[in-house]
Amino acid sequence: MTTLQTTILENINSPQDVKKTSLDEMKILAQEIRQGILNRVDKVGGHLGPDLGIVEATIALHYVFNSPVDKFIFDVSHQCYPHKMLTGRKQGFLDPLNHPEISGYSNQNESEHDHFMIGHTSTSITLATGVAKARDLKGENYNVVALIGDGSLSGGEAFEGFNNASVLDSNFIVIVNDNEMSIAENQGGLYKNLKELRESNGTCANNWFKAFGFDYIYVEQGNDIESLIKAFSDVKDSTRPVVVHIHTLKGKGFDKAVQNKEWGHWSMPGILSENSSYGDVPECYETITKDYILNKVKKDNTVMAINAATPGVFWWDSEFRDKLGKNYTDVGIAEQHAVGYASGLARNGAKPIFAVMTSFIQRAYDQLSQDLALNNSPATILVYWGGISSADCTHLGLFDIPLICNIPNIVYLAPTCKEEYLKMLDWSVEQNEHPVAIRVPSGDYIVSGVEDTTDYSILNKYKLTEKGSKVAILGLGDFFELGKSVKEELKSKLGIKASLINPKFISGVDEELLNSLKADHDIVITLENGTLDGGFGEKISRFFGNSDIKVLNYGAFKEFNDRVPMGKLNERYHLTKELIAQDIEKLL
Amino acid sequence: MTTLQTTILENINSPQDVKKTSLDEMKILAQEIRQGILNRVDKVGGHLGPDLGIVEATIALHYVFNSPVDKFIFDVSHQCYPHKMLTGRKQGFLDPLNHPEISGYSNQNESEHDHFMIGHTSTSITLATGVAKARDLKGENYNVVALIGDGSLSGGEAFEGFNNASVLDSNFIVIVNDNEMSIAENQGGLYKNLKELRESNGTCANNWFKAFGFDYIYVEQGNDIESLIKAFSDVKDSTRPVVVHIHTLKGKGFDKAVQNKEWGHWSMPGILSENSSYGDVPECYETITKDYILNKVKKDNTVMAINAATPGVFWWDSEFRDKLGKNYTDVGIAEQHAVGYASGLARNGAKPIFAVMTSFIQRAYDQLSQDLALNNSPATILVYWGGISSADCTHLGLFDIPLICNIPNIVYLAPTCKEEYLKMLDWSVEQNEHPVAIRVPSGDYIVSGVEDTTDYSILNKYKLTEKGSKVAILGLGDFFELGKSVKEELKSKLGIKASLINPKFISGVDEELLNSLKADHDIVITLENGTLDGGFGEKISRFFGNSDIKVLNYGAFKEFNDRVPMGKLNERYHLTKELIAQDIEKLL
Repeated sequence: MTTLQTTILENINSPQDVKKTSLDEMKILAQEIRQGILNRVDKVGGHLGPDLGIVEATIALHYVFNSPVDKFIFDVSHQCYPHKMLTGRKQGFLDPLNHPEISGYSNQNESEHDHFMIGHTSTSITLATGVAKARDLKGENYNVVALIGDGSLSGGEAFEGFNNASVLDSNFIVIVNDNEMSIAENQGGLYKNLKELRESNGTCANNWFKAFGFDYIYVEQGNDIESLIKAFSDVKDSTRPVVVHIHTLKGKGFDKAVQNKEWGHWSMPGILSENSSYGDVPECYETITKDYILNKVKKDNTVMAINAATPGVFWWDSEFRDKLGKNYTDVGIAEQHAVGYASGLARNGAKPIFAVMTSFIQRAYDQLSQDLALNNSPATILVYWGGISSADCTHLGLFDIPLICNIPNIVYLAPTCKEEYLKMLDWSVEQNEHPVAIRVPSGDYIVSGVEDTTDYSILNKYKLTEKGSKVAILGLGDFFELGKSVKEELKSKLGIKASLINPKFISGVDEELLNSLKADHDIVITLENGTLDGGFGEKISRFFGNSDIKVLNYGAFKEFNDRVPMGKLNERYHLTKELIAQDIEKLL
Repeated sequence: MTTLQTTILENINSPQDVKKTSLDEMKILAQEIRQGILNRVDKVGGHLGPDLGIVEATIALHYVFNSPVDKFIFDVSHQCYPHKMLTGRKQGFLDPLNHPEISGYSNQNESEHDHFMIGHTSTSITLATGVAKARDLKGENYNVVALIGDGSLSGGEAFEGFNNASVLDSNFIVIVNDNEMSIAENQGGLYKNLKELRESNGTCANNWFKAFGFDYIYVEQGNDIESLIKAFSDVKDSTRPVVVHIHTLKGKGFDKAVQNKEWGHWSMPGILSENSSYGDVPECYETITKDYILNKVKKDNTVMAINAATPGVFWWDSEFRDKLGKNYTDVGIAEQHAVGYASGLARNGAKPIFAVMTSFIQRAYDQLSQDLALNNSPATILVYWGGISSADCTHLGLFDIPLICNIPNIVYLAPTCKEEYLKMLDWSVEQNEHPVAIRVPSGDYIVSGVEDTTDYSILNKYKLTEKGSKVAILGLGDFFELGKSVKEELKSKLGIKASLINPKFISGVDEELLNSLKADHDIVITLENGTLDGGFGEKISRFFGNSDIKVLNYGAFKEFNDRVPMGKLNERYHLTKELIAQDIEKLL
C-alpha cells in the first residue's frame, strides 16, 4: 500500500494555502480530494457519496472564509472528509498508514478547525446557534457557518434549530447541501419544497426557509467552485441569518456511487474492486426479519414496516420496499416521529414494526416513554447493532438497555438464537397488550435447532437451561454464548457445575427463579452486551442485595470509547471466560 | 361547594347532543363551558387560558365532525377541558365532588372520545399520522383531526410530524390554534410567520404550512362559532392533508387571564379570589437561583440563562427576564435545541445555565449524550421538580436519575441544602471540564447554616456526615432528610448508631468511602427520590455485590402512577422511617 501522490493537495497544509490557489488549481484539487476519499473508503470504509458531493463546496468555503476564526459546524459530520484534507489531515486519506489516525467525523481533538465531536444528525443548526450567541455575548466578530443537508434536515433538532436561529440578530450562515437524497430517498413535505425550489431556481412560492425568516440564496451549480465562491462571498459577514441552498450531486466523480446513491452513502472497504455492491446475503437476523415481514404482510394487510432513513442497515433494499408498498414507511431521519407514528398505528389497530439502530433509538426517549409506553401501544421495535464494539464514539451501541428497560410498560426482549427471535417477533406483532422492543442479536448468527414454544405473554420468565449449583450464570441475549463458555471453563478449571440461565426478558426480574437459586448457589454472575450502568445486571444485584448471594455484573463501563479494539475492551471489562472464571475463583 | 347549574350544557351528554343545538344555544353553551373551566380550575387548579380560548372551536368540532368515529387528537391535551365537557364528563367540571374523577389531560380510560394519554407537547401530528395510516390500511373512512398550537408547534416531534403527515395521500386535518402565545411569549421564526399570516388574513408569501405541502385555510375569528363551523365543514372529508389556522384569544372570558396570558396558562387553585396572581415568593431554590444568576450576569457578561417555554415554573418573571436582556433565551418548547444550544455556548466560551423540569428533560436524551456529554461541554443544567409525587402520569418527575446519571461524562449532583446547592452551582458555572446537571431539591427548603467548602472538581467524593457502625444510610439529595430520620429511628428503636452519608454525586461511586464501610457495617441502605430502576441505589448494590455487605435500595418502583396520593406511595415503597427501620431489623 503506497501513498497517493497529488500535485496541488501536496502543497495544501492549511486553509491559508487554499486561498493561494487559482480556480484552475482548485479544479485539480477537487479531483485529488476525490481520489483521497476513494482511497480511504476503499481501504477502511466510510461515507462515500456525501463526501464526493461536497468537495467543491468545501474548497469554496475555505477559499472564502477564514477557518478556524470563522467556524464551520458540520451536521452529522459525515461530510467532513474534504474539510479534513484541507486542514492538515490529508495523510489520513492519502496514506494507508495514516488512515487510522483520523476519524470519519468532526473531532476537535484532531484539529482546531473542528468544533464538535458529532455523528448523529440534525444537530448543526442548534450547536451553531449556541456558538454564534456566545460570539455575540463576547463581542467578537466572525462568521458561524452550519453545513446541513443530505437528509439531515428532517430531524426534530434541526427544525428546532431553524426556528430559533432565525431570530438571531447577527451573522449566521446555513449551507443546505441538497443532493436530492437522504440515505435512501428523501421523505416528507420539506423535500418536496426543496424540489420546487430547485425547479424554480429558488423562486417558487412558499419558500420553507424564508417562511422561518431566513434570507435565502439558491445555487443551482453546487459542484461549480466559481458559483459557490460567489454565493459564499455574497453572504460572508452578513449580519443576519441566511440560508445558502446548494444543489449538488451525491457521489460525484464515482459512477457507481452516482448511479446507486443509496449504496454509495456509506460503504465497507473494497469499493474499488469489481464486486462491491449489494450481493446475496447469507441467512442472518436481517434476512429472516425481512422474510418474516413479507410473509406476514401477505396474510395481514395491517402490518407496517417502518424505518428512519437507514433501510440499508437492515438489508431492506428497494426490492423489499417495493414488495411492501403501502405497508412500508421510511420516515426519514426522524426517530421521534417513527416511535410516535408506530404508537398511533398500534392504537388504531395496525401492527407496526419499527427497525432502528441502537445508537439512533436514543433520539426518541420521550416518545418511547410518553407516546408509546404510557399508552401501552402494542408496537414492535427492533433494536439492531446493540453491543460493545470498536465503533466510533459517536455511534456506540451501548446505551439502549438502560434507555429502554427502565421505562415502565415496555417489554424488552433479548433472544439468543433464531428460533427465539422469530417466536418473540411473532408474539410481539400479534399481541395487543404491550409495547415490545427486541434486541436483535449482534454477534454470531445462532440456530439452536430447538423450536421455541415459550408463551411470552407470561412476562419475565427466565429460562433455566441447565441446573447446577454454587454458581449461576445469567447470559443475556447475544452474551448467552459467552455464558456457555464460562460454564465450560468453570467445569474444566474449577470442577464447578454451574447453572446457566437465559433471561430473555431484559426489562423484568424473574423473582421466583432467582429466589430458587438461593438454596444451592453462592454466586450469580450477569453478562450483558452493553453498559453496566442502569442496565440489566444492576437489577439482579439489587434483587440479591438483601441475601447472602454474591453478584458480579459483567458489561461495559460508563465511558465513550472511540475505536478501541475489541480485544482491549474484553480485557478491560473482563469479558472472557478465563478472566470471569478467575474472578469467580477469587470469590469462592 | 355546590354543583354549577347550566341550561344548555345540562342537556349535553354526548357530541350527538351538540349537533342538535342552535347557533344561539351554542353561544350560551360556550359561556357555560367557560364557567365550568373556571369552576374546576378555581377548586383544583389546572390549565386555564388554553382551555378558555378553545371553547368555540371545540363546540364547532363536535358540531361538524362525528366523534369518536372521527378522531380528535389533542396536542399536550391541556386544551381538552371543553372536549371533556361535551363527551359525558361535564360533572368533572361542574361538581366539585366529581373533580378528582377527571384528569386534566386526554385519557382513553375515561372516554372513547379520547385516543391517547398525553401530556408532553408536540406529539399530536405524529400520533395522528399513525392513526390515519392505520385507517387507510384497514380501508376505513373517517376524519383524523389533530389539534395543536398554544406554543406546541415548536417541538421537534411536531416538525417531524408535519414533514411526514404532509405526504399522506388521504384525509388529515390539523387545527392550529394560534393564540399568539406559547406558555410565555412565542419564540422563533415560525411564530413570526404565524404573525404574518394573521396580518395578511392568511395570504402572505412563504406560508410555512403550504411550504410543507399542506392545504391551508385561515380563520381570523377563531372564537366565532359560525366561522369555525364553516371552516371545519369545508375541510371535513378532505382527501389530503390540510391545516386550518384559527386565531383565538387565550384566556377569553376571564379578564385576568386575558390581560396576563402567561399567568393564566396554568394555575393553582384560587383563581376566583382577589389575590390570585404572582405574589412575593418566600426564599426558596427558585429565588436563590434567580439571585445567583442576576449577580453573576452583572460580573460576567457570558452567563446565559436558558429555559424552554416554562419560565414561570422557576419564577423567571418578566422583570427577571428584562433584567437579563440578551443574557436570557427562552427557546420555546424545544428541549433538544436548548441542550444543544447550551453545548454550543459552552464550547465557545460562554456560561450557559439551562433550567428545565424533570419531566421535560426527557425530550433531550440524545442531545444530553451526543451534543453535550460526548463533547464534555461545560454547561450547567438545573433539573427542577424531580421526585416521587402524586402528579399526573404524564408529568412524573421520576426518571431523570436513570436518564442522566448513566450517560458518561455528565456530573449529576444532588445537593441537600441551600449552601451545597449554591456552592455546586457556582462551581459548575465557573469550571471548564464537565457538563454538570444539578437536581434542585424538590422537598422542603433546607438551610444547613454551615458553609460548604467542598471542592467539587474532585469528583465522586461522598460526605460521611456521621460515622457510626452496623448500618450506613446513603440519603441522596432531598432524601437526605429522610436518611436523618431513619438514623434517629434506628437509634431510638434498635439502639443502632448508624452512619449517615450525603452522596452529593448521583453519577459516580465513592469507592474509597464505600470500601471503608466494610470494616464495621453489615447493611447499607440507599434512599433516592425517584425510580429505582437504573438509578443511584442500583449502582451501590452492584458495588457491594462481591462483598458481605447487604444493600437495600429505596425509591419508586418502575410504574406510571396517575395521581396516587403520597401517603399510599410512601407506604408502597416503604419510604417512612418506621418501615425502613422494620426492614433493617428483619435483616439484622
